[in-house]
Amino acid sequence: MPEIQTPPFKNILITGAAGALGTVLRESLRPYAETLTLSDRSALGETRENERHVVCDLADRDAVFEMMKGVDMVIHLGGAPRENTFQVILDSNIVGSYHIYEAARQCGVKRVIYASSVHAIGFYECTQTIDANVPQRPDSLYGVSKTFVENLSRYYFDKFGIESVCVRIGSCFPKPVDRRMLATWLSYDDFSHLCERALMAPSVGHMVVYGNSANSANFWDNTQAAYLGFRPQDSADAYRAEVYANTPTPDPRHPAVRFQGGSFAADGHFEDPKTN
Amino acid sequence: MPEIQTPPFKNILITGAAGALGTVLRESLRPYAETLTLSDRSALGETRENERHVVCDLADRDAVFEMMKGVDMVIHLGGAPRENTFQVILDSNIVGSYHIYEAARQCGVKRVIYASSVHAIGFYECTQTIDANVPQRPDSLYGVSKTFVENLSRYYFDKFGIESVCVRIGSCFPKPVDRRMLATWLSYDDFSHLCERALMAPSVGHMVVYGNSANSANFWDNTQAAYLGFRPQDSADAYRAEVYANTPTPDPRHPAVRFQGGSFAADGHFEDPKTN
Amino acid sequence: MPEIQTPPFKNILITGAAGALGTVLRESLRPYAETLTLSDRSALGETRENERHVVCDLADRDAVFEMMKGVDMVIHLGGAPRENTFQVILDSNIVGSYHIYEAARQCGVKRVIYASSVHAIGFYECTQTIDANVPQRPDSLYGVSKTFVENLSRYYFDKFGIESVCVRIGSCFPKPVDRRMLATWLSYDDFSHLCERALMAPSVGHMVVYGNSANSANFWDNTQAAYLGFRPQDSADAYRAEVYANTPTPDPRHPAVRFQGGSFAADGHFEDPKTN
Amino acid sequence: MPEIQTPPFKNILITGAAGALGTVLRESLRPYAETLTLSDRSALGETRENERHVVCDLADRDAVFEMMKGVDMVIHLGGAPRENTFQVILDSNIVGSYHIYEAARQCGVKRVIYASSVHAIGFYECTQTIDANVPQRPDSLYGVSKTFVENLSRYYFDKFGIESVCVRIGSCFPKPVDRRMLATWLSYDDFSHLCERALMAPSVGHMVVYGNSANSANFWDNTQAAYLGFRPQDSADAYRAEVYANTPTPDPRHPAVRFQGGSFAADGHFEDPKTN
Amino acid sequence: MPEIQTPPFKNILITGAAGALGTVLRESLRPYAETLTLSDRSALGETRENERHVVCDLADRDAVFEMMKGVDMVIHLGGAPRENTFQVILDSNIVGSYHIYEAARQCGVKRVIYASSVHAIGFYECTQTIDANVPQRPDSLYGVSKTFVENLSRYYFDKFGIESVCVRIGSCFPKPVDRRMLATWLSYDDFSHLCERALMAPSVGHMVVYGNSANSANFWDNTQAAYLGFRPQDSADAYRAEVYANTPTPDPRHPAVRFQGGSFAADGHFEDPKTN
Amino acid sequence: MPEIQTPPFKNILITGAAGALGTVLRESLRPYAETLTLSDRSALGETRENERHVVCDLADRDAVFEMMKGVDMVIHLGGAPRENTFQVILDSNIVGSYHIYEAARQCGVKRVIYASSVHAIGFYECTQTIDANVPQRPDSLYGVSKTFVENLSRYYFDKFGIESVCVRIGSCFPKPVDRRMLATWLSYDDFSHLCERALMAPSVGHMVVYGNSANSANFWDNTQAAYLGFRPQDSADAYRAEVYANTPTPDPRHPAVRFQGGSFAADGHFEDPKTN
Repeated sequence: MPEIQTPPFKNILITGAAGALGTVLRESLRPYAETLTLSDRSALGETRENERHVVCDLADRDAVFEMMKGVDMVIHLGGAPRENTFQVILDSNIVGSYHIYEAARQCGVKRVIYASSVHAIGFYECTQTIDANVPQRPDSLYGVSKTFVENLSRYYFDKFGIESVCVRIGSCFPKPVDRRMLATWLSYDDFSHLCERALMAPSVGHMVVYGNSANSANFWDNTQAAYLGFRPQDSADAYRAEVYANTPTPDPRHPAVRFQGGSFAADGHFEDPKTN
Repeated sequence: MPEIQTPPFKNILITGAAGALGTVLRESLRPYAETLTLSDRSALGETRENERHVVCDLADRDAVFEMMKGVDMVIHLGGAPRENTFQVILDSNIVGSYHIYEAARQCGVKRVIYASSVHAIGFYECTQTIDANVPQRPDSLYGVSKTFVENLSRYYFDKFGIESVCVRIGSCFPKPVDRRMLATWLSYDDFSHLCERALMAPSVGHMVVYGNSANSANFWDNTQAAYLGFRPQDSADAYRAEVYANTPTPDPRHPAVRFQGGSFAADGHFEDPKTN
Repeated sequence: MPEIQTPPFKNILITGAAGALGTVLRESLRPYAETLTLSDRSALGETRENERHVVCDLADRDAVFEMMKGVDMVIHLGGAPRENTFQVILDSNIVGSYHIYEAARQCGVKRVIYASSVHAIGFYECTQTIDANVPQRPDSLYGVSKTFVENLSRYYFDKFGIESVCVRIGSCFPKPVDRRMLATWLSYDDFSHLCERALMAPSVGHMVVYGNSANSANFWDNTQAAYLGFRPQDSADAYRAEVYANTPTPDPRHPAVRFQGGSFAADGHFEDPKTN
Repeated sequence: MPEIQTPPFKNILITGAAGALGTVLRESLRPYAETLTLSDRSALGETRENERHVVCDLADRDAVFEMMKGVDMVIHLGGAPRENTFQVILDSNIVGSYHIYEAARQCGVKRVIYASSVHAIGFYECTQTIDANVPQRPDSLYGVSKTFVENLSRYYFDKFGIESVCVRIGSCFPKPVDRRMLATWLSYDDFSHLCERALMAPSVGHMVVYGNSANSANFWDNTQAAYLGFRPQDSADAYRAEVYANTPTPDPRHPAVRFQGGSFAADGHFEDPKTN
Repeated sequence: MPEIQTPPFKNILITGAAGALGTVLRESLRPYAETLTLSDRSALGETRENERHVVCDLADRDAVFEMMKGVDMVIHLGGAPRENTFQVILDSNIVGSYHIYEAARQCGVKRVIYASSVHAIGFYECTQTIDANVPQRPDSLYGVSKTFVENLSRYYFDKFGIESVCVRIGSCFPKPVDRRMLATWLSYDDFSHLCERALMAPSVGHMVVYGNSANSANFWDNTQAAYLGFRPQDSADAYRAEVYANTPTPDPRHPAVRFQGGSFAADGHFEDPKTN
Repeated sequence: MPEIQTPPFKNILITGAAGALGTVLRESLRPYAETLTLSDRSALGETRENERHVVCDLADRDAVFEMMKGVDMVIHLGGAPRENTFQVILDSNIVGSYHIYEAARQCGVKRVIYASSVHAIGFYECTQTIDANVPQRPDSLYGVSKTFVENLSRYYFDKFGIESVCVRIGSCFPKPVDRRMLATWLSYDDFSHLCERALMAPSVGHMVVYGNSANSANFWDNTQAAYLGFRPQDSADAYRAEVYANTPTPDPRHPAVRFQGGSFAADGHFEDPKTN
């Protein structure tokens, strides 16, 4: 990431800031804003200089609107991070994200960077190289909620001009630990770099970009997001021998092997507590 | 529609059966099922032979599950029929449709025909001919909810094998009354015909089909749904002179003229009652 | 064409009005304008009610600007109608059309319908079905000038909002007289119908549409112009037996047979008078 | 088919002339050639005026070369008409067709119309509308042999200029008798019409065209062969009620229902006699 | 650029040779021709060994024809380098380039490398990644003239076999100085390399290639020109921090920010001197 | 290639193992199998540890079936390596490959890596960048046989689940020796790497991948095979100056220069011995 002298933004909000990805950005985006507003349902530790902490539930409309005042850029990582019951997905991801976008509209936010996911298109086969324009094929209720927010953000851009970059994150972890991640792994540094580019690009309109490192194996064609200038520097290939050694030869017919969503595509969904 | 001797289905459920479209299908689909289950929030009039009436709110999970028992095919028309507050859209269209699909899965329903809408793609320009694979571009929260159900149904097919035909209905009214409807009008007979084909097609997987009559003006390329055999017989052209005479020359720059969604694309959204 | 009571336009200008196509439109578009301004380099015969005649050369900038005052719609047929020396093509088609567009901009014209030609794409093979988005492949200097105006009109729309419909006319004659015209023939009635639709469509932006009748043989996919509602009623097939009988079996390797532009693709270009 | 006065061709060879399709063309193509050479392994009945009969096996190279002398157009219907052992497919369809093309090259034949088949692409799903450029996906060894000849004919055009029209015939029978044929049925008259157009088109290069009637249900997009002018007049829809009545409701998951090739896609292949 | 021992060409003509780009090529292409013919309207300084200087106006047909004798390759950089009045664009870019191509045809030139421009497609949005086959969308009269020459050169190849490589140059300057140039910058070395490849490629037919360095941000997909082997070595990223520091945060809605053509897309056109 | 501790496969069969490519893989794939079965018509030299040698003709069905027992992965390089008479191509490439696939099915082989060739698509022009989904265009009978096996393998996957990776090898030699090879060259190391990836990829279904090194000049877009993770390390560019120096300036109109197949596209085919 280029050296930044003067923060280009007044106030960047990061939701879900207590999670692993939020923690990464909290560090790397420091030079980019006069104030970094960090939000999560749980506490965020010591408040550092220039930080503003807001503990709130995104399903709480008033709290979201209050938090959003004065913000010009949003990195929206908050919500349920994996498959859950429909009710949890509904409250955290669907209603919560609606609050973010509606508050963005009313508070004059310019751009939202949204943590979408491979699970929005998890039912494509690994052997299909897809770009960002293919119809969504979610692999879980979690994935359905990701497609909801992608479409909601498209609406907010088309009608109200709120720009969004939806990042379909592959597997953002310290290192790849299975064979699928040889394709989907996104290093923390590359994630930071991608967010920086999404913030700094002069004009983004509404874009969808895939988020993985420069792995030789790859499911995704990011050509359509070339304008962002996302050029990952890390590669899962450095871990290939280790992954080969630690994981068994996969069965090519198993859904978790065939589909881009991995185990999300293979699992049934959560038993709904209200069902009997 | 071909003459049918023996009903091919045991029990077809029509949700939203009290509306205009439900009333049309209630008549035309009679020969296709031993039992026609009609559901709405309001009463459905006299129960005719072979009909079963269920008054319920789709947001009521238990009622939906109870209603779905024994059903093999669903025509899902129910929900808020136009733009509304987010809360109404959420309850009626998002939560309600989730109940339909989850009940379909648990009750062994084979196929759902879903009344999606032009408003799922209403922010494409009229001059863009689009097919069913273009990214969704909803023009309203209503339209966002339509994209939600399209994607939810894709998930239920990919993971659980519940087939769906999502019909993006243009303007299903007795006759076209404005210049945009010269392209989007779907006659009641053509709508019935389309539903018949969606029911009877041997295998549909998950399909999206545009629903308009054989109007000479057209936004949509239905090539990808050719297998259904939908071949509309009516045309808005019969009303063209009348529409010219009754409507003023449009301003080509106005959003309601430029975009496929018409006035939905031009209007702001409902003031949310909770906002102050 | 639908019956029109009140002329929807104030003043429609037809350039090249003395030619065969101009003569056709002079009749069929009468009900569409309070004043029909007819322009050509040669005289236009008796001035009928509501007509205004302007004899001028399109290369004469001041004359064009004068003629354009008060015009709201233009049908631009004027210019050299076939291959000629570069100087003639330059003056009549390139400079002349620039005058039309620049006058349109300065005089507040809303929309131009431009008589482009198959010769803008005449070097595609007959066996290639092409749509309106393929790169242009002119077959002559005449064809190059047609691509020039298509691109010029695109510029005037993108920058100044002047709408255009560029009609790539096949072979607009009383009837098809060779085997290539079994695909390219456009009847006079169908041409009138196409111009009517291009005038009356609520919003056209910048469109390119192919102009041929409902011939069973066809080079062109007009899907992208479906919004116009152009639905030709005539067909070259009525003349197929006659054409078979009157024309020899073609040599499939001859450029005039292989290429969509026919003999234009086979001929060399005019000797430039200045060359020695 | 247009009325023909003078035969446009000298000598049209029809291979497989004793079969159902050959019998149809033997009648309909009479006016198109001075001599109609009919070939099959079995006898062809009484020799009518202008007919020349050749009984031979296409696997017999010398016989094929002898038969081809003086021929200017070939309709190649011969070979095994359905799945068989590899040895039969190899001899009849692969080696036999090589003989046809190599003889065509050496004897100066101008054009071959080849009876390819839906089984060249039988592993596409019925819900996928495909055009002629999709990768082949044969559903049987029979289908593999059809792709072989399509590619062989491409080679003979690219290198030697022998033109070919490969017709992927759906189901060419007196009438449709199952639900799949509601999409794939090709009437005898439409087949004749298609062959006439393939013969008479001025220049065909190498084309692939799907052969089915104007059925409302359809798997295929023939846009790329629009130049031929194939416009079927019959429709399986006339038999729809009859087919519904006579056939059971299909299981959408069965391969014979899901795939375009029908039962060919569902069956295993012939036990090879040499294996034990 | 690979080390060259023997000049592969007899006489390379560079038009516009006195400009910045001409000066670059005058140096880098020295080893590639026995004679380097340099042409411009202004003087070209001292004549070095193997150089031939021609001062002429491209609008002067006879001068162009005289200059072209004996030339086998042309690098056509000459003409108005930015927006100007229509008359200047017409004379310098349209008429001048016609002279180049017509002289090339009559003098037996084999290949022309033409300096087209981003302004031929300047009305695409920066967020749209485009390839070389998208319809042209010029952003200025200058850009219209660039599309004219691209189409003219297509014609000269299709009809007369004169090969052309049209290079849509982004921003060829010593270094990138604004945020748009982070995507469009083409270093002088990369420009030389691209011209070398265009000269040396065994067969180019008619190609369009985008010219920018290996910048991480990019509007263009050069896949279709992969055969040339253009692989830029420089990158605007080296100047990213500097550009961030020296330029204000852009307004994403401003045309000069939204569109690939930058300020060309935002500016109106030159007042035509003849207008009053 | 990553360091491998435990052989992931039991028994890898390499056909055509005595040839140049077989010799390369014999070395590089050693760590990947407990047993390496090497097959060819000629002797394979000294049997090294873990090797099993089988001398047989692939046209000998019983020998192939016997050899295939216990094999889990096949690298199928065997058959005629260049143009030959139809009989040789038929026996070695068509019948031989059928034996390989049918034996694979009956013996439970999981995956076949097939040495297809540029000659399967050799009639595309060098200036056309093609991906793996374009229709095949073989340049020779040899090329036709390559398309046969590609389609046969597609059938065996679609019907029987035998996975295949078809590698369209460009020019696999020690170094590039002509200008075409600047695009098509595949180094031995890159070929080994590609085979390793094809073996180790978790699930390949049926894929086609182009095989060339990281040459700057390139005909092929491998995007669709991105999942394999083939990332070549060598480049023909290292030999560019040498190739320029040793080869004459090519004639861009000659078929061997214009077409991807090089001289295969230019040559006629072998005189068939049976012809007189």
